[in-house]
Amino acid sequence: MSGNTLGLLFAVTTFGESHGPAIGCVIDGCPPGMALSEADIQPDLDRRRPGTSRHVTQRQEADQVEILSGVFEGQTTGTPIALLIRNTDQRSKDYGNILDTFRPGHADYTYWRKYGLRDPRGGGRSSARLTAPIVAAGAVAKKWLHRHHGIVIRGCMQQVGEVAIPFASWDDVPANPFYAPNAAIVPQLEAYMDSLRKAGDSCGARLYVEATNVPAGWGEPLYDKLDADIAHAMMGLNAVKGVEIGAGFASVAQKGSEHGDELTPEGFASDNAGGVLGGISSGQPVTVSLAIKPTSSIRLPRRSVTRAGEPTMVETFGRHDPCVGIRATPIAEALLAVVLMDHALRHRAQCGDVRHDVPPIAGTSRA
Amino acid sequence: MSGNTLGLLFAVTTFGESHGPAIGCVIDGCPPGMALSEADIQPDLDRRRPGTSRHVTQRQEADQVEILSGVFEGQTTGTPIALLIRNTDQRSKDYGNILDTFRPGHADYTYWRKYGLRDPRGGGRSSARLTAPIVAAGAVAKKWLHRHHGIVIRGCMQQVGEVAIPFASWDDVPANPFYAPNAAIVPQLEAYMDSLRKAGDSCGARLYVEATNVPAGWGEPLYDKLDADIAHAMMGLNAVKGVEIGAGFASVAQKGSEHGDELTPEGFASDNAGGVLGGISSGQPVTVSLAIKPTSSIRLPRRSVTRAGEPTMVETFGRHDPCVGIRATPIAEALLAVVLMDHALRHRAQCGDVRHDVPPIAGTSRA
Amino acid sequence: MSGNTLGLLFAVTTFGESHGPAIGCVIDGCPPGMALSEADIQPDLDRRRPGTSRHVTQRQEADQVEILSGVFEGQTTGTPIALLIRNTDQRSKDYGNILDTFRPGHADYTYWRKYGLRDPRGGGRSSARLTAPIVAAGAVAKKWLHRHHGIVIRGCMQQVGEVAIPFASWDDVPANPFYAPNAAIVPQLEAYMDSLRKAGDSCGARLYVEATNVPAGWGEPLYDKLDADIAHAMMGLNAVKGVEIGAGFASVAQKGSEHGDELTPEGFASDNAGGVLGGISSGQPVTVSLAIKPTSSIRLPRRSVTRAGEPTMVETFGRHDPCVGIRATPIAEALLAVVLMDHALRHRAQCGDVRHDVPPIAGTSRA
Amino acid sequence: MSGNTLGLLFAVTTFGESHGPAIGCVIDGCPPGMALSEADIQPDLDRRRPGTSRHVTQRQEADQVEILSGVFEGQTTGTPIALLIRNTDQRSKDYGNILDTFRPGHADYTYWRKYGLRDPRGGGRSSARLTAPIVAAGAVAKKWLHRHHGIVIRGCMQQVGEVAIPFASWDDVPANPFYAPNAAIVPQLEAYMDSLRKAGDSCGARLYVEATNVPAGWGEPLYDKLDADIAHAMMGLNAVKGVEIGAGFASVAQKGSEHGDELTPEGFASDNAGGVLGGISSGQPVTVSLAIKPTSSIRLPRRSVTRAGEPTMVETFGRHDPCVGIRATPIAEALLAVVLMDHALRHRAQCGDVRHDVPPIAGTSRA
Repeated sequence: MSGNTLGLLFAVTTFGESHGPAIGCVIDGCPPGMALSEADIQPDLDRRRPGTSRHVTQRQEADQVEILSGVFEGQTTGTPIALLIRNTDQRSKDYGNILDTFRPGHADYTYWRKYGLRDPRGGGRSSARLTAPIVAAGAVAKKWLHRHHGIVIRGCMQQVGEVAIPFASWDDVPANPFYAPNAAIVPQLEAYMDSLRKAGDSCGARLYVEATNVPAGWGEPLYDKLDADIAHAMMGLNAVKGVEIGAGFASVAQKGSEHGDELTPEGFASDNAGGVLGGISSGQPVTVSLAIKPTSSIRLPRRSVTRAGEPTMVETFGRHDPCVGIRATPIAEALLAVVLMDHALRHRAQCGDVRHDVPPIAGTSRA
Repeated sequence: MSGNTLGLLFAVTTFGESHGPAIGCVIDGCPPGMALSEADIQPDLDRRRPGTSRHVTQRQEADQVEILSGVFEGQTTGTPIALLIRNTDQRSKDYGNILDTFRPGHADYTYWRKYGLRDPRGGGRSSARLTAPIVAAGAVAKKWLHRHHGIVIRGCMQQVGEVAIPFASWDDVPANPFYAPNAAIVPQLEAYMDSLRKAGDSCGARLYVEATNVPAGWGEPLYDKLDADIAHAMMGLNAVKGVEIGAGFASVAQKGSEHGDELTPEGFASDNAGGVLGGISSGQPVTVSLAIKPTSSIRLPRRSVTRAGEPTMVETFGRHDPCVGIRATPIAEALLAVVLMDHALRHRAQCGDVRHDVPPIAGTSRA
Repeated sequence: MSGNTLGLLFAVTTFGESHGPAIGCVIDGCPPGMALSEADIQPDLDRRRPGTSRHVTQRQEADQVEILSGVFEGQTTGTPIALLIRNTDQRSKDYGNILDTFRPGHADYTYWRKYGLRDPRGGGRSSARLTAPIVAAGAVAKKWLHRHHGIVIRGCMQQVGEVAIPFASWDDVPANPFYAPNAAIVPQLEAYMDSLRKAGDSCGARLYVEATNVPAGWGEPLYDKLDADIAHAMMGLNAVKGVEIGAGFASVAQKGSEHGDELTPEGFASDNAGGVLGGISSGQPVTVSLAIKPTSSIRLPRRSVTRAGEPTMVETFGRHDPCVGIRATPIAEALLAVVLMDHALRHRAQCGDVRHDVPPIAGTSRA
Repeated sequence: MSGNTLGLLFAVTTFGESHGPAIGCVIDGCPPGMALSEADIQPDLDRRRPGTSRHVTQRQEADQVEILSGVFEGQTTGTPIALLIRNTDQRSKDYGNILDTFRPGHADYTYWRKYGLRDPRGGGRSSARLTAPIVAAGAVAKKWLHRHHGIVIRGCMQQVGEVAIPFASWDDVPANPFYAPNAAIVPQLEAYMDSLRKAGDSCGARLYVEATNVPAGWGEPLYDKLDADIAHAMMGLNAVKGVEIGAGFASVAQKGSEHGDELTPEGFASDNAGGVLGGISSGQPVTVSLAIKPTSSIRLPRRSVTRAGEPTMVETFGRHDPCVGIRATPIAEALLAVVLMDHALRHRAQCGDVRHDVPPIAGTSRA
């Protein structure tokens, strides 16, 4: 098992460093008999890909995925599915000035303290590049979840730095590079980002992701609760510093008479729970928000130390995201898909397939 | 493995229902040779215990822990440690009015959807009573962490309902039933709680917990990052709807030049990271905040449905916490201890004991 | 997880030492809705119990099991099932002469080397007493497997020391204390055992256990193959030194034209495979044999060393099995049940419930 | 996790099908700071490689391994190590006659029953080709074990079909294609094999593998005992039908006064235990024997059925091993290495590094 695997029954083990020969993953436990090809995976990788707008890092990687195993004549066989993405555009010289120092806010220092050595090129395994394999795995999960349960997973930006984004429409999301559900605010976001890039600084972001049509009954009472596993996956995403489910931190000031979602024959009256009660899905939309910190790789000089403990200054040049959060939406969707997939299989293991004897209340799905 | 175990190498499997014969846990992986007796565990259980003030539930449970295995002549043997707590004060009749209905905001509905049946007495396994075994396990972890690394874990309340609690002193925390680090505000909290109880309603809470002297190097790059595992454990605690590490959601509006903690020979200049970078501890304090929702068990009538889907009203009588968060501090401390313990052993597995060749920067500990 | 759990989805964590307060286990992952009470478990514990004939150890333990959780109104709830067995007849003084020495063939030496200390009373966790909890868990698994798939699990003795036992009938097995499928040979076995006891020595045994009606399709291609998991469980039973599936070691001298079981419309023509091909069940009987070594606790004096490394002699008095194998049959059945249960749930997780579109060949069951 | 991973802390997940694009593995948990390159791995792959003598399959695969991650400037970084081997010599047409039928003794039937479909080319994932990735991972483990503990792992053949091989010398093993520790018997083995090939049949084999210098203290009391995990890994190797530790099945007829290895200040007097007591290593050589069944792919016609259940005959042409066992020695060595590596890290997790306060008895190593 060890620590580089996400999930128990739909288990994704990723490998690779930012500037190594390749990155990829092995998916273990995918059910057999599902149509699968690179065409099912590449679109989500393209959404995530660097170099698609001037607001993200300018490293040009094709990110072409290759399926190495687990598929025969276009169908999953039930055996492990290995996905490979070759690194092609590594510019190691861009990282020359950080070989002996630690970039503030980065994993440089902690990897060195843990392992005694580190691959400094592009942050090694700590690089956001390593979100590509999980996006690939998430595409497989998304397909199965949609096919078998009609589950829809989608995300959008709620805030970029200091700019809050009021929700207008899901239709706006694919049409701008910010995943903003609001076309009108895009020029303001672009101006904000341009000013950050000129200043050599960065900003954080607040992301929202949801899954609808999740059947009731997924999750374990303790400790692998559905929301706990979602929090685990999301907090594990590079740069995430906070995770909320449903009403999240707003729950603190709510009363019980206001927070608890009432049940009626027409369905739940609200969704403060975020679709999870007692760790188990209720059939309502599963709603999650993430806080993403500002990128640590900025041009502004910052104080640091050398490996010998001497004071020094660090400036990072080269190609970097001024706002990591801008590329995170497809990744958060992928993570939610992988967690839901794992729980779909766990639930089926212990409780079998759909139970027809339990009438769901309106607005929720049958398990 | 299954889903009722927390941790991999310091693995805690809990069992029990609120009104069953007993609750408890099995701790697998505790290092041998540590002095251990019930006296090491009982104090934390007493801090957590119901019935200790008028602001918490009035169920009177002695919560006396018994060590069934894994200890010989007062020392841990390295074999599994089973801890048992008998339930003594179950008043099943208090739950008579919810047998056929689902309390809004509770796990009643989801357990029924998942399993097709449920133990309705006191919420069964979804009850906050099941935090007792993990507090017991956390006491064992706390002791080892303190002994071997000088780690100190402590928590306090940041906010109760709408009442924010300014931090005054850690010394104030043990002296009031709210775990408030501010003696002066206690009367206001008491008045607030009394009014809630009279109204038959409840409120949420915001909790803070930290660990100091955590060595650098604990955690995995992906996916079992230290902060991801902390988020998993905390989100798994009853009623938690949000988890933050370090600057948390405040990171969204920060700039990279402000968020990234600079390094100097005297130590880190700030702790927005919350002690974790790239999923691995940096040696700085690990700081966590939780959002706890208001209790779902309130006297005010609320709309619900019966198992047949007919509309009905639900009122909960009997003994309930008006604010679950008030008892949560020792539980959050226990969860943080269990996660850190697991990572201490994981790190030791892969990288061995203390490494003396790496000079830590001031203010951080040696791994 | 750690190392004291058997199984992944039907996960049994045991605890306890021979002379500690209690032994027991927690079963995590049992499906909900199955009728379960102590009466389902006690019979198998009674079969295993010491003190039931003069040929086994004379320690008198009632071995009364108590269900502490996971059952409500006589049905499993899907939450962890904790089973407790109190130790009542510990005679510590019987072990006085081994406190500072290591009994040859026993785990005394290795526990001391691993942990730096050990509970010497009755062998601590290495005692065969710790087979009681797994027999209890096995009873739960047996019930579900029989109910849902009609699976029958049974075992018998093939050889006791130098005495080979020709198979006569399954009906003979419950009628003698040796689990011998041959009533006629029992007097010879009794005489053999009496002579061993008088001599203060012990002998080994060869056991056979089988499961019929196992559906085809259970097991993973690599590495958690059904036969590999069976081997793991069986080799983990105290005193086992060899495990065979199907033709076992006889396969070495067979030809492929003889070993490979042909398929016909009426069914498989033979079962050299032992019901497992490529790690996956074929629908044929799963057949297993075990080699159990002679007990290490004998009265004859044997050479050993003290903890300081000084030469010494060891004799073990008190109550001991002259042939551990005699009590092993119900334990081997229980282990086979627990492994099959785990694989039933694993298969259901990845591939769902029974598939009706695949015609089985005669003599094999539907998955 | 799922079922395609071997090990917990040195966890090897393999992927690939016989005729897919590639096979490989991901090693998670390898300690950092060890020199590693393809040159450390390729020799063991070459030993295993098909086409190296006329007695093994004539498929010509270069089996060139490529390290894709986890190594920087020639040293392991502690991050996952992905190893890739491209398939180059797939001759699918050799398998044309088995598309709709099931080869007796093979996994064809069981894969089809489990998944509802299968990759028939070369047996898909059930192919012995999938032993290449574990041999690669085993080479990494062997290197670390030797470096850190001086452990030496080696194997040889004990019997090929009906021909028993008396042990003469380890020096003879590398000099013949049978791994026979006896140069004199080689002509007899070659004649035997030639006659089998002409007859279109196959035979089994009995293998021996040992590890010396294993420190005392490795293994868990229950259930992840060292010998149980060895049995698990070995029974999981293609075609294995039996596993023995130490005296193995000979233990059945031994007396306790003969089997139990006495301890003296000069060391253990014998090794019937096979280096494991109570599931934990004693410091003595760990000795294992395996029974390997005859290959199921033979030219002689055999009865089978079609997917529709109609009777048919099967003959396998193409390139096949007349004795799979001949290539198995390096694989068994690799499996033993991977299991020992996992337990080295597990022991270090719970009990730390070498303990200097425990005097080992002569002939055993310090943990």
